[in-house]
Amino acid sequence: MVVETLRWEGGLEGHVVLLEQTLLPHEERRIRIESVPAMVDAIYRLAVRGAPAIGIAGAYGLVLGIQDLAAESPLDLVARARETAAILDRARPTAVNLRWALERMLARAERELAAGSPVRELAQALLEESLAIHAEDAQQCRRMGEFGAEFIQDGMTLMTHCNAGALATGGIGTALAPMYVAQERGLKFEVLADETRPLLQGARITAWELARAGIGVHVLVDGAAGGILASGRVDAIFVGSDRIAANGDVCNKVGTYGLAVLAERHGVPFYVVAPRSTFDPRAKSGAEIPIEMRPANEVAELGGQRLASAGVGFLNPAFDVTPAELVSAIICEVGALPRPNADSIKSALGMQ
Amino acid sequence: MVVETLRWEGGLEGHVVLLEQTLLPHEERRIRIESVPAMVDAIYRLAVRGAPAIGIAGAYGLVLGIQDLAAESPLDLVARARETAAILDRARPTAVNLRWALERMLARAERELAAGSPVRELAQALLEESLAIHAEDAQQCRRMGEFGAEFIQDGMTLMTHCNAGALATGGIGTALAPMYVAQERGLKFEVLADETRPLLQGARITAWELARAGIGVHVLVDGAAGGILASGRVDAIFVGSDRIAANGDVCNKVGTYGLAVLAERHGVPFYVVAPRSTFDPRAKSGAEIPIEMRPANEVAELGGQRLASAGVGFLNPAFDVTPAELVSAIICEVGALPRPNADSIKSALGMQ
Repeated sequence: MVVETLRWEGGLEGHVVLLEQTLLPHEERRIRIESVPAMVDAIYRLAVRGAPAIGIAGAYGLVLGIQDLAAESPLDLVARARETAAILDRARPTAVNLRWALERMLARAERELAAGSPVRELAQALLEESLAIHAEDAQQCRRMGEFGAEFIQDGMTLMTHCNAGALATGGIGTALAPMYVAQERGLKFEVLADETRPLLQGARITAWELARAGIGVHVLVDGAAGGILASGRVDAIFVGSDRIAANGDVCNKVGTYGLAVLAERHGVPFYVVAPRSTFDPRAKSGAEIPIEMRPANEVAELGGQRLASAGVGFLNPAFDVTPAELVSAIICEVGALPRPNADSIKSALGMQ
Repeated sequence: MVVETLRWEGGLEGHVVLLEQTLLPHEERRIRIESVPAMVDAIYRLAVRGAPAIGIAGAYGLVLGIQDLAAESPLDLVARARETAAILDRARPTAVNLRWALERMLARAERELAAGSPVRELAQALLEESLAIHAEDAQQCRRMGEFGAEFIQDGMTLMTHCNAGALATGGIGTALAPMYVAQERGLKFEVLADETRPLLQGARITAWELARAGIGVHVLVDGAAGGILASGRVDAIFVGSDRIAANGDVCNKVGTYGLAVLAERHGVPFYVVAPRSTFDPRAKSGAEIPIEMRPANEVAELGGQRLASAGVGFLNPAFDVTPAELVSAIICEVGALPRPNADSIKSALGMQ
């Protein structure tokens, strides 16, 4: 059984329980999130991270924002829902799943309002919608895992970057889902995990999650991927995504682009695994995706220890963009899109 | 004035003083090395690192090995010199400058022996040879800086990986020497330094050294180089080398190869700056260069703190190989070799 990233606990007056991922792998501590500011903080601090997981966290956060309004008017509740969504949406700018989940929640609120639902029912409907977003994400992970496992063969060495596992979703992950399904099917394989500086999600989270599931994993520094790909050891690369543009350009954790360039040079298939909520049809290409710049101290310090000298500047982009031409296939919950392009993406988004 | 990496202090009974680079940037402490085992340890621990600097350290280490033998026979002294060279040579396998310096020291010993030098003179000759290796390295750094500065223009943004600065040599560095010379010539430019995991020589040493010299520097994680090169911000990349094969393949700190592939994709010139002592005519191509595998704890721990979970494996190659086709020019002390190949290298090695 893979690890649980977050859950809603209780009814409308309930709260969120989430795994405090900044403490991994040293401590598996769950924290209770009972307010919108606490959820914004958890998302910004990366206590909960991974595009699908922060979508779910955003939806639950919106419920936290309206749960005390069940005695007010439906109009007041919807107004508060909009304000809360705007606040949550600013917590992190790149992963579009957050905006997608908040828009879905607001659309549900509008539908209930239009249908004349009383305020208590409206609030309950939003809780249900958030739980549905979570449950659907888990199903989509499973489907992506099944489609993606078709690309894994016995004896392969797979590589991944950052963490796009159970801990990035409400289910068995995106990029790691094919590995979990392949394991269930009895295939043997090993995984090489880039440590993924600056926050080491590969070393801290992916390696922890895979080892816990009994999958053999080796960690390497991000710079070592080139030589290892050149050596011919790696059979396929699986990564997740935070936002995919209409033309198939893939935004993902910083370092993904360099890995994709190396994969192409060495003929190693490069798979992006992401649910359709990661697609942003409004972004025509990767150039239109905002890249979050994170604080210098993520690079300059580790565990409170200063790594670099004073008087030095830092650049800390959290993401980069991989052009669609470098992607062998995008694997989503309706199937694999080989050599993705605007048409195949449009068609996938139209499928039920 | 740039920082001094190491020096011989005293006469034949003297010792080596070197900057303990593992403590940078927190502390600028110099340690005294008085024996061969202490020098092997300092080289292995990376207290002294950088291909030219460990060549010099090796030569001084050989003097430490024979300094108590001035009362023995010349034959005994040369035998001990050979034993000492074999021990020092094993400290690190990849940088050929170490072997080059030791072979030069042994050749001097043989010449003195053949000339019938008395034992005290023979020992003194070896000390002189080591001091000459150091002095020549400083001159070569200056020459490489002058040739390399021709590729720098006012307003440029330069990128570098690892540390190939003063702290890697007995002079003003290899890859950083052109920057110091350009600064002397009054040019303005900025430097982006890859942090260079696992041991963070970029963040800890290059950034410290450049900031100390008044050159503006920003540090980025290694994985961020791809997106930044794609953005068009970088005008040229300068790196050092630990060994260059006869065909121009360049072995350097892990992560260099991926950077070179990205540089080619984005049309950014990629310069390798290294003295001719870095060339290994015995290695036909990069495939014949041994890649040092370093201990897992360099990746798994930082400052005694464990980064990754237990039950996880690690891969820690310290170097990788960049094929000659990706190198815009090798800059050595006799000039720049554009698009290096076996012929241009052979010719450079034959020049006085």
